Amino acid sequence: MHPRIPDLEALSAMLHEFVVEREWGQFHTPKNLATALSVEAAELLEPFQWLSTGDGSELTESARAAVRLEMGDVLAYLLLLADRMGVDLYEALAEKIAINAKKYPVDKARGRSEKYTAYEGK
Amino acid sequence: MHPRIPDLEALSAMLHEFVVEREWGQFHTPKNLATALSVEAAELLEPFQWLSTGDGSELTESARAAVRLEMGDVLAYLLLLADRMGVDLYEALAEKIAINAKKYPVDKARGRSEKYTAYEGK
Amino acid sequence: MHPRIPDLEALSAMLHEFVVEREWGQFHTPKNLATALSVEAAELLEPFQWLSTGDGSELTESARAAVRLEMGDVLAYLLLLADRMGVDLYEALAEKIAINAKKYPVDKARGRSEKYTAYEGK
Amino acid sequence: MHPRIPDLEALSAMLHEFVVEREWGQFHTPKNLATALSVEAAELLEPFQWLSTGDGSELTESARAAVRLEMGDVLAYLLLLADRMGVDLYEALAEKIAINAKKYPVDKARGRSEKYTAYEGK
Repeated sequence: MHPRIPDLEALSAMLHEFVVEREWGQFHTPKNLATALSVEAAELLEPFQWLSTGDGSELTESARAAVRLEMGDVLAYLLLLADRMGVDLYEALAEKIAINAKKYPVDKARGRSEKYTAYEGK
Repeated sequence: MHPRIPDLEALSAMLHEFVVEREWGQFHTPKNLATALSVEAAELLEPFQWLSTGDGSELTESARAAVRLEMGDVLAYLLLLADRMGVDLYEALAEKIAINAKKYPVDKARGRSEKYTAYEGK
Repeated sequence: MHPRIPDLEALSAMLHEFVVEREWGQFHTPKNLATALSVEAAELLEPFQWLSTGDGSELTESARAAVRLEMGDVLAYLLLLADRMGVDLYEALAEKIAINAKKYPVDKARGRSEKYTAYEGK
Repeated sequence: MHPRIPDLEALSAMLHEFVVEREWGQFHTPKNLATALSVEAAELLEPFQWLSTGDGSELTESARAAVRLEMGDVLAYLLLLADRMGVDLYEALAEKIAINAKKYPVDKARGRSEKYTAYEGK
């Protein structure tokens, strides 16, 4: 039912080969990769900008297809940046979840979308 | 040498549990998740904004740590959005690589950073 | 009733003085200014990310105050970038309105939020 | 020598008329306008992403033209959002400059691009 969650090893290798063949590593400074990631994330957001929620009924078929490919772009730059900066994405996300679990304790955060600063220290 | 590339299955399950416990699914429309992804990508970009390249020598230790956690955030929202929209990230990225391999043939794109439209049809 | 629309001449001069005093011009390449503009725009978006519409009733008082100041930041970087690139913002916006008036003719675009490509050539 | 800095009154009126004619006000919630502003800021950033500085010599003529029009878009959404939220952009920017003048005192900030937190309280 859920989409398959990838083992990203093979994709990362494909990306690496793609970049090396084109001699694009020279453009892939951490800053440039972070910029590209941000640009792709905004392109992903673009089809949603005038919608209320972007649920299935609101996005056209072609918008859904575009969003899906932009998600691929975001993942590509995230993997390239992680590789360049020596970041273990698995550990980074696991650590972030642990941090947020403390910032947003279940009994205070349940059903509320405010930033943790709204109930910190209360 | 390369950082470990995760099997994301476990992380996706952890995220899902985190969200369900807090009853946050109600806020996670595709539009809102795409917005959050874009906001996190910009936060990741922020420490790089005044640097020339963001290479190891330019980022401070605390900036590197912040960037690493922002990468975790970006991955989190990407996984949540993929789950919500039924997108297989592995296939989306593999398809994007195939599309770009056609747009950017090695003999034309080698060592050049321009958009493919610069040599399309030439 | 409408907020006062400023003559930006004085603000641009204030910004220029602020930057010169701090010798920050050296960091203000067009690329860096465009990056900073994008980062500030995302910070402006951040308080809206989990809201339905961001109308008066949804934003807290402190979020409204934060958004207002982020709007100041966006304007600051836009003015600095325009100055650096020799762009006349008035003409740029007037030209953009003229272009969009053709792309989105009133009879086709009325009450519709789709991109012009949805009815182009029809 | 500097580009003309506009009195934005006329542009704001033109924008208002453009929106009313197309009955687009219904889509212009503060959240949607903030989203559109962020998307346009990223489009403005896009031509710079692989460049070192984006100086005159690096941007192609067509990229410069695109950046100029994207600046018009950013200004348009900033004006529409200011109008919708009752924000006086002149005052918002003047206040932000005053705040930053305190955060970044000339003697500490001169020639340094770090965030004020790097020398706060020292």
